Amino acid sequence: MNDTAAALPSSDRTRIRRVAENARYDRATLHAIIDAAYLCHVAFADDQGTHNIPTACWRTGEHLYIHGSNGGRMIKWLGKGTPACVTITHLDGLVLARSAFNHSMNYRAAMVYGRFEPVADKHAALAALMDHIAIGRQAEIRAGNDKEFAATTVLRISLDEAACKVRSGPPVDDAEDLQHPAWAGVLPIVQVRGTPEADPLNTEATPGYVAAWSGMA
Amino acid sequence: MNDTAAALPSSDRTRIRRVAENARYDRATLHAIIDAAYLCHVAFADDQGTHNIPTACWRTGEHLYIHGSNGGRMIKWLGKGTPACVTITHLDGLVLARSAFNHSMNYRAAMVYGRFEPVADKHAALAALMDHIAIGRQAEIRAGNDKEFAATTVLRISLDEAACKVRSGPPVDDAEDLQHPAWAGVLPIVQVRGTPEADPLNTEATPGYVAAWSGMA
Repeated sequence: MNDTAAALPSSDRTRIRRVAENARYDRATLHAIIDAAYLCHVAFADDQGTHNIPTACWRTGEHLYIHGSNGGRMIKWLGKGTPACVTITHLDGLVLARSAFNHSMNYRAAMVYGRFEPVADKHAALAALMDHIAIGRQAEIRAGNDKEFAATTVLRISLDEAACKVRSGPPVDDAEDLQHPAWAGVLPIVQVRGTPEADPLNTEATPGYVAAWSGMA
Repeated sequence: MNDTAAALPSSDRTRIRRVAENARYDRATLHAIIDAAYLCHVAFADDQGTHNIPTACWRTGEHLYIHGSNGGRMIKWLGKGTPACVTITHLDGLVLARSAFNHSMNYRAAMVYGRFEPVADKHAALAALMDHIAIGRQAEIRAGNDKEFAATTVLRISLDEAACKVRSGPPVDDAEDLQHPAWAGVLPIVQVRGTPEADPLNTEATPGYVAAWSGMA
């Protein structure tokens, strides 16, 4: 995939039409939005209708990964190639304009269309999930055993058909509204990392990746 | 809807099967999760497949509301009664267990199934959205004119068929893993309100609801 192709919508349904100036089709934006997330929302349809399931996600290369128990509805339907749409949205603020209809939100959203496929190397994939949580943790934990791995399915979806939409910055009012006497600006919303809470039964010293957790995400 | 009925799943597809002890079917939990959100993810299918669109949301009574331009794909399809699934998820932390497969996340999620319906009184509905952003703002802004209201559709979906899933607290390891020497606990994730950023062209004094914004959301 070359840079020119990467900066264009990959399909008709990923071509953003509403407020098209906020569309982003480059890989760097897509990767950054996914990598900043711990969970995504997965939409798919089964014999009971359309579902929208929040689930943990992580990225390796040009695929987004999820996992779950073999018996779960989502895993069963996605595992057989049911079409899906995966969306990740980071809300960055409320945008207060002078006029009602120019209010907006600042956000970073990514949407991926496609079909999931089972991942054969579950050990490598779930190690990548652990690395997404904290580099160094995989070596410390009690690793999964054969029974645990057998009960779990890992799925991935290609990032080939994807689009992002990003809004940032101050409100955009119409010229004739600029003198209207209402405060204009952004009320920021920020996802931050709180102080780690050790389990009451924890017996171990605080590892570096836990000590380093707090602060801005 | 009486309290007893409210505490049970309202349909087969809202009966939570995976980690069922985290299921919540009461109205207070559902309302609190929606009211803490500024956006939801709406899943629906059209002639191009299944979509999953992030959009602003708010609640009045037993309905969740969204809005958008008449011409948008989501509004067009949902406005004619296309089945939908709306999900809101607040991520509260990463749960680090001693064993790989007992890692989890703390979260509050709500899922609503149903069909949206057009809202006739758009003025009242959009005033409620403004109140959700900041009480007091509606009276200050340049109100929408007839053309703006005419170009906008407001939709609502009943909360009748809904379910929540909530996890909180420390990791739950198997007894035989409690002595494994890995740090156990929660890495909290918190959504906070940042310092308001006035528009460079703002001419107004800071209203109370802006001054009061910063701090924990």
